[in-house]
Amino acid sequence: MKKLINNAEDVVVEQLKGFGAAHSEVEVHFDPNFMSVAGGISGRVAVMSGGGSGHEPLHGGFVGYGMLDAACPVSVFTSPTPDQMYEAGKAVNGGKGILQIVKNYTGDVMNFQMAADMLRDDGIEVHNIIIDDDVALKDSLYTAGRRGLGTTVFAEKICGGASLEGYDLDKLAALCKKVNIHGKSMGMALTPCTTPQNGTPSFELAEDEIGIGIHGEPGVERTKIKSADGITETLRKHIFEDEAYTRQLSKWDVEKGDWVDTEVKDITFEKGDEMIALVNGMGGTPVSELYTVYNKLAELAGGHGVKIVRNLVGNYITSLEMAGMSITFLKVDDELLRLYDAPVNTPALRWGV
Amino acid sequence: MKKLINNAEDVVVEQLKGFGAAHSEVEVHFDPNFMSVAGGISGRVAVMSGGGSGHEPLHGGFVGYGMLDAACPVSVFTSPTPDQMYEAGKAVNGGKGILQIVKNYTGDVMNFQMAADMLRDDGIEVHNIIIDDDVALKDSLYTAGRRGLGTTVFAEKICGGASLEGYDLDKLAALCKKVNIHGKSMGMALTPCTTPQNGTPSFELAEDEIGIGIHGEPGVERTKIKSADGITETLRKHIFEDEAYTRQLSKWDVEKGDWVDTEVKDITFEKGDEMIALVNGMGGTPVSELYTVYNKLAELAGGHGVKIVRNLVGNYITSLEMAGMSITFLKVDDELLRLYDAPVNTPALRWGV
Repeated sequence: MKKLINNAEDVVVEQLKGFGAAHSEVEVHFDPNFMSVAGGISGRVAVMSGGGSGHEPLHGGFVGYGMLDAACPVSVFTSPTPDQMYEAGKAVNGGKGILQIVKNYTGDVMNFQMAADMLRDDGIEVHNIIIDDDVALKDSLYTAGRRGLGTTVFAEKICGGASLEGYDLDKLAALCKKVNIHGKSMGMALTPCTTPQNGTPSFELAEDEIGIGIHGEPGVERTKIKSADGITETLRKHIFEDEAYTRQLSKWDVEKGDWVDTEVKDITFEKGDEMIALVNGMGGTPVSELYTVYNKLAELAGGHGVKIVRNLVGNYITSLEMAGMSITFLKVDDELLRLYDAPVNTPALRWGV
Repeated sequence: MKKLINNAEDVVVEQLKGFGAAHSEVEVHFDPNFMSVAGGISGRVAVMSGGGSGHEPLHGGFVGYGMLDAACPVSVFTSPTPDQMYEAGKAVNGGKGILQIVKNYTGDVMNFQMAADMLRDDGIEVHNIIIDDDVALKDSLYTAGRRGLGTTVFAEKICGGASLEGYDLDKLAALCKKVNIHGKSMGMALTPCTTPQNGTPSFELAEDEIGIGIHGEPGVERTKIKSADGITETLRKHIFEDEAYTRQLSKWDVEKGDWVDTEVKDITFEKGDEMIALVNGMGGTPVSELYTVYNKLAELAGGHGVKIVRNLVGNYITSLEMAGMSITFLKVDDELLRLYDAPVNTPALRWGV
């Protein structure tokens, strides 16, 4: 295992210490572990997220002005515990409630629900919104339903901007759900990755694999090596031709005082749509190769009558040193674009300030 | 070869097209290939650099407000040709001359000199300043003398800021030399990388190798796998204990109208120095592991009486998908820190705007 680590059991704490030493605008807390925006917040909704480590810069790299107020990191590819979100939520509670943005992995969903219950017991209003934008498959080793991928980055950016603009909790939760149903992603891997705990690759790839999620789960399809253009067209086609997807998601019902299932349906993409495109590296792919993908993607999008109005090309939601990439398209209207463009100042995303 | 490419011969052009499509603030030109800041410049010194591709985001990712005005990319790990710099220089000439920042690789040095001669023939003043900050070894397969590493990023940032502040060409050239002799770097690799042209790894590593440059040359030392802390201490020690290094560098003598050798001597680092620290990923190492390195580095620097006043942790000067990292320390005074902090807005580095 060739990694810049000391002992496998110390990996996350040492990384967090280094992160805290490097970024004075973020406060790092231990036992339980979480990051919060330095100085806390007041008079607006707090925006939180979290999840297994190994996907950096997601989520800790997005804590800061105009994006996340707190993030809960934990061991590589596992779920944070309710006490982490509970302590993080108390630390950043600005008196207007908390939006928790949750990627759709079974453990994450359950633990964020428990944290929400604990925070409500303390009189703090909480909404959990689930991101499940991966069009590759409906169930995986780690999820019931679709997985959360690149739309998470957009949800964190847009909801962070909206909180600063003064959205109240209900409006912010509705906005986050809107981002989720407007975003579609698909990823692929060229190589597996190795977690510090296991020390061996997460799977074997004699050939390329397409449709892989962010944890190295088996994908929908294994194919022979394709050109970058061929891979790009495959992902674009799956994303653009994805039909309206309906899922049952748990939602907190204030009147009932309980979680209830609610049906949520994706939009479909149409000609004339304006989009933000993300070409996201999985960690071990040179950024230069992502531009080869973006080159083809922009051409293909144009050919299908879709206008890319903003783009991100780089490593935003990774799987350690996995080689590969994912593509996300978010259909935007004036509201989503205005909030996406709002100033942001975090370790991993920064503009307008 | 598992890469997101189409044909090996089209790699750079397709990447440049994608880069141009993604970043409207940079103009991409072909035949010869170069990137320039959109809209050109006037009334100030142009700052240029360039070199083989494969080190992205260096240099193209640093073209923009407050950093480079032009960059000349070429095939992976080869040297740009004089006609590229010549055309780039003409395109961004703002009437106040051109500073060319040149990493110390034999081909780069020679070709940038030829380009400087061609631009002078057109009546454009040019200074070439060489960056040779790698303390690992004095000669390599690609260089006479030390190689150019992370100090290049600082030179481009600081000189870009100084050009905006109105430094004239002589003052800017002196500043760039000051950055070079104030910066020291050393890198290491955990894995080799594979160029698209060759299709096979640049070297074999049964064990870890320490002291490797940015092209995968053999390093000063091969050692058994060490902990992240052990590797960090090894690099820090080489950097901090490096003695004043003297090299003969070619310099354009205006009165003689010719290149003359000039002796340039590094500073040494002392207790009490204020530093900017860069922990740079080689491309295939997760950013989270770089924070493990930064954690130890900050502790070690403090223990040696050195104060890190700014830091960068991430992929800035890479070698394709190589796993590994390099460390750079730049000793700063008020001038260097002020110019480092000046606003910058490029695809890969952005703050204050």
